[in-house]
Amino acid sequence: MRPHAAVAFARATPYLFHTMASPELDALTQALARLPGLGPRSARRAVLHLMKRREAALVPLLAALEAVDRRLTECATCGNIDTSDPCGVCADPRRDQRAIAVVEEVSDLWALERSRLFPGRFHVLGGRLSALDGVRPEDLTIDRLVTRVAAGGIDEVVLAMNATLEGQTTAHYIADRLEGLPVRLTQLAHGLPVGGELDWLDDGTLAQALRARRPVS
Amino acid sequence: MRPHAAVAFARATPYLFHTMASPELDALTQALARLPGLGPRSARRAVLHLMKRREAALVPLLAALEAVDRRLTECATCGNIDTSDPCGVCADPRRDQRAIAVVEEVSDLWALERSRLFPGRFHVLGGRLSALDGVRPEDLTIDRLVTRVAAGGIDEVVLAMNATLEGQTTAHYIADRLEGLPVRLTQLAHGLPVGGELDWLDDGTLAQALRARRPVS
Repeated sequence: MRPHAAVAFARATPYLFHTMASPELDALTQALARLPGLGPRSARRAVLHLMKRREAALVPLLAALEAVDRRLTECATCGNIDTSDPCGVCADPRRDQRAIAVVEEVSDLWALERSRLFPGRFHVLGGRLSALDGVRPEDLTIDRLVTRVAAGGIDEVVLAMNATLEGQTTAHYIADRLEGLPVRLTQLAHGLPVGGELDWLDDGTLAQALRARRPVS
Repeated sequence: MRPHAAVAFARATPYLFHTMASPELDALTQALARLPGLGPRSARRAVLHLMKRREAALVPLLAALEAVDRRLTECATCGNIDTSDPCGVCADPRRDQRAIAVVEEVSDLWALERSRLFPGRFHVLGGRLSALDGVRPEDLTIDRLVTRVAAGGIDEVVLAMNATLEGQTTAHYIADRLEGLPVRLTQLAHGLPVGGELDWLDDGTLAQALRARRPVS
């Protein structure tokens, strides 16, 4: 005969089963838990939030996802991912047509956009050259970049790769490919980050900062 | 004549506009940012993640949301929100039919479920009595609880309200309503939380712990 509920409760021995969430809720929790910034625990909270605020939270999120899923496309010009082609940046008439910032990923494009410091357009490579991951030039949109620059009307190409070995390798390769074309090639400065303290910085950064030292103006 | 890109760039004066994200992406970012645990910044990262991993992330999330939205319902027995009615807990034959834990919200039901300590079923009130928020007994599922208990077959009702003024007021009210019915009324113990240190605890908790002190067994 199974123990009386109250007894089992009083004993407070962990109850060996609990009723599983329905497969639908489970699938939703897992899908949300895979988003950056959400773990299994916060995903559960999010699911509960969506369930309790169906009209205010679940329905809008569902509609927004459907709209994006329906319209998501890659910009044929710069490789940006957007809901229109050409993407919002390429289509924006206020932007300087004569400068292109070459970035590895769309996330880098967004980072530069948030800084609001670059007035030109972009070119997304879709990754970085990597012997380790077997990423070769033809796997990136480098040919498209060369064609785009060769087409003319561009004064400056900013190589905005990450300050990693692979990023810099990619930058050098692209510099070679663009050599001879009538554009000024520039790259993001390397050196001390804002607030960086010498005795906390890695030798690589220190070496960069020292090598790229400038006269005090 | 507008300044040359490179000049504006070198000046590094914040560029006064940036191209806005498309309305669809904007809506999705805002919908995600409203989830608990996600802010505007992490929502942007999440949107980017969904865009870059369309098949692996966006499509499954969309499908899961649709499934939940289609099947979401409230359990007519206990008030739990689930994708089936009766809900998974009420439908689970392994659970003790003779014990009911009364909770304020579905989230409290889930919290008790995670603890795996309660073998019985639940009853979700849908809130707590509150003069401030104008929540009256008829706004909660108290009548349904009384009917459920009066129907018989239940030995114990655990009042598992929050240890707040409103939660305890609700517990007392329900205790009055259930008076005379042949069930044992219990409530969660109040006292020191695990790891609680006396000199850090609020007076209320200390008072509860002292009032509810037990002989050392």
